[in-house]
Amino acid sequence: MTQTHWIAVDWGTSQLRAWAIGAGGVVLDKADSADGMGGLKQADFEPALLRLVDPWLGDTPTPVVACGMVGAKQGWVEAPYRPVPCKPGEATPITPATQDSRIRLHILPGISQASPADVMRGEEMQTAGVIADNPAFDGILCLPGTHTKWIHISAEEIVSFRTAMTGELFALLSQRSVLRHSVGGDDFDRDAFDSAVGETLSRPERLAQSLFTIRAEGLLRDQSGAIGRARLSGLLIGAELAAAKPYWLGQQVLIGGAPALVALYARALETQGVQCLTRDSETLTLAGLRLAHAKLTEAET
Amino acid sequence: MTQTHWIAVDWGTSQLRAWAIGAGGVVLDKADSADGMGGLKQADFEPALLRLVDPWLGDTPTPVVACGMVGAKQGWVEAPYRPVPCKPGEATPITPATQDSRIRLHILPGISQASPADVMRGEEMQTAGVIADNPAFDGILCLPGTHTKWIHISAEEIVSFRTAMTGELFALLSQRSVLRHSVGGDDFDRDAFDSAVGETLSRPERLAQSLFTIRAEGLLRDQSGAIGRARLSGLLIGAELAAAKPYWLGQQVLIGGAPALVALYARALETQGVQCLTRDSETLTLAGLRLAHAKLTEAET
Repeated sequence: MTQTHWIAVDWGTSQLRAWAIGAGGVVLDKADSADGMGGLKQADFEPALLRLVDPWLGDTPTPVVACGMVGAKQGWVEAPYRPVPCKPGEATPITPATQDSRIRLHILPGISQASPADVMRGEEMQTAGVIADNPAFDGILCLPGTHTKWIHISAEEIVSFRTAMTGELFALLSQRSVLRHSVGGDDFDRDAFDSAVGETLSRPERLAQSLFTIRAEGLLRDQSGAIGRARLSGLLIGAELAAAKPYWLGQQVLIGGAPALVALYARALETQGVQCLTRDSETLTLAGLRLAHAKLTEAET
Repeated sequence: MTQTHWIAVDWGTSQLRAWAIGAGGVVLDKADSADGMGGLKQADFEPALLRLVDPWLGDTPTPVVACGMVGAKQGWVEAPYRPVPCKPGEATPITPATQDSRIRLHILPGISQASPADVMRGEEMQTAGVIADNPAFDGILCLPGTHTKWIHISAEEIVSFRTAMTGELFALLSQRSVLRHSVGGDDFDRDAFDSAVGETLSRPERLAQSLFTIRAEGLLRDQSGAIGRARLSGLLIGAELAAAKPYWLGQQVLIGGAPALVALYARALETQGVQCLTRDSETLTLAGLRLAHAKLTEAET
């Protein structure tokens, strides 16, 4: 097997993902597991990592460069936040000792903002990836997900950022609230999505009452789950766009994430006349971790 | 034991409550259980009711007058919605047969609104209670809870109403979202509540981003659970008040519900110059059910 030069790791709350990187930064292999930081005690981290990367390890220590919740206070080792403004690719990692001498672990810190108070862990590597790809990028990076990030990038720095809990709200409301009876199935009505985005984007105060209307339309008019689901998504994304307006209005916007979700945000922003660039989040994360690894190698030589 | 003339029942999604009513409408006894409609199959309803009211039954059939989710499609027997505008105390109940001949069951219908689509089941009895108490009442009845209702009452009718899922959102966010780490304990900071209400009431678009700030303030500045909890409550109630503004602005407002929650809504509305009357919800429900029972007796004689 071709030799693994180093291992890239994105360790979130619910998932652990790793890539074996060979000469020239080529991805040789990848693996993931459900061993997210949220379910692990301190002593569980090293075994969870080794279960995943063991086949890639050789006789000499392999560097492991990890970002995400693994560096949180409840993670493997705390890597304190760096405050904005800062260059996301130039962090100094924490390098804790490991039981297994076949790995040399580097945990990257997250980034914080004092006012309005906000934090990120992991998304700064996607941001570094955007900058690595295009150092002249001046605009907004939107990373939709459980907690969507809106990140202002200028002069290779993160200038400011904001978080919206849109993905988590959608999951809670569609799976655990009374709306679960009215948003069933996997179908999705695009017209209903567009109209719901417009409602809360132009009148964000309506959100509080519009949500229950999804249930009432289901009861009174047998509104389909496909429409209910699209309306719930659209109302929440519209409300998020209303909050994030200072970020996207008149700006260059790049959206990174899972393709289906990226397409939804791009569609919503297009209705506002914003043409968005889009990227897959894995590509961005790897580009950022490659940059972090390169800086590390520079510093060590 | 004094004879039970009839039994009043408020049967919600999560709770079943019953009152033994004697001569002159006096409450002789009361009982409740966790046998809410949400956890029952069709065949479970009659046994659940009998477990609670059996001690009150005599040789002749006792009328049982029930409101709430017991009349929903997934309830004991469906009592179809009555559309607004209508007089909440003048509904004709459904009278299904029962296995046990010691009860004569009457299930009251809920109320629906075509546009914007909305529904209620149970709250119409509290509304009937307000009207029974003061037939000249012209204004707004606010019933905060899992699903808060805003009800416009005029000329003894429900003219229109709206529902906000504020209580359910608070429960989901405080117990199941990432915010659960930042809103712990039972303490509540009133100043933080007031300031949060003001934020989303004046700038409702901020809600989407303000929620995660509670988590970030916990991480970065060790903000207490008492402040986090009060801010979450205030942000959600402020957003609800922004949505409900056409209901309360310049209106007479009566708030009915559990005393602690009623006090929060009254406090929030007072900051907007709205002086509210307040009532306990049990008093209102019983006043409404007494009226429904009286109409039933009239109709039968």
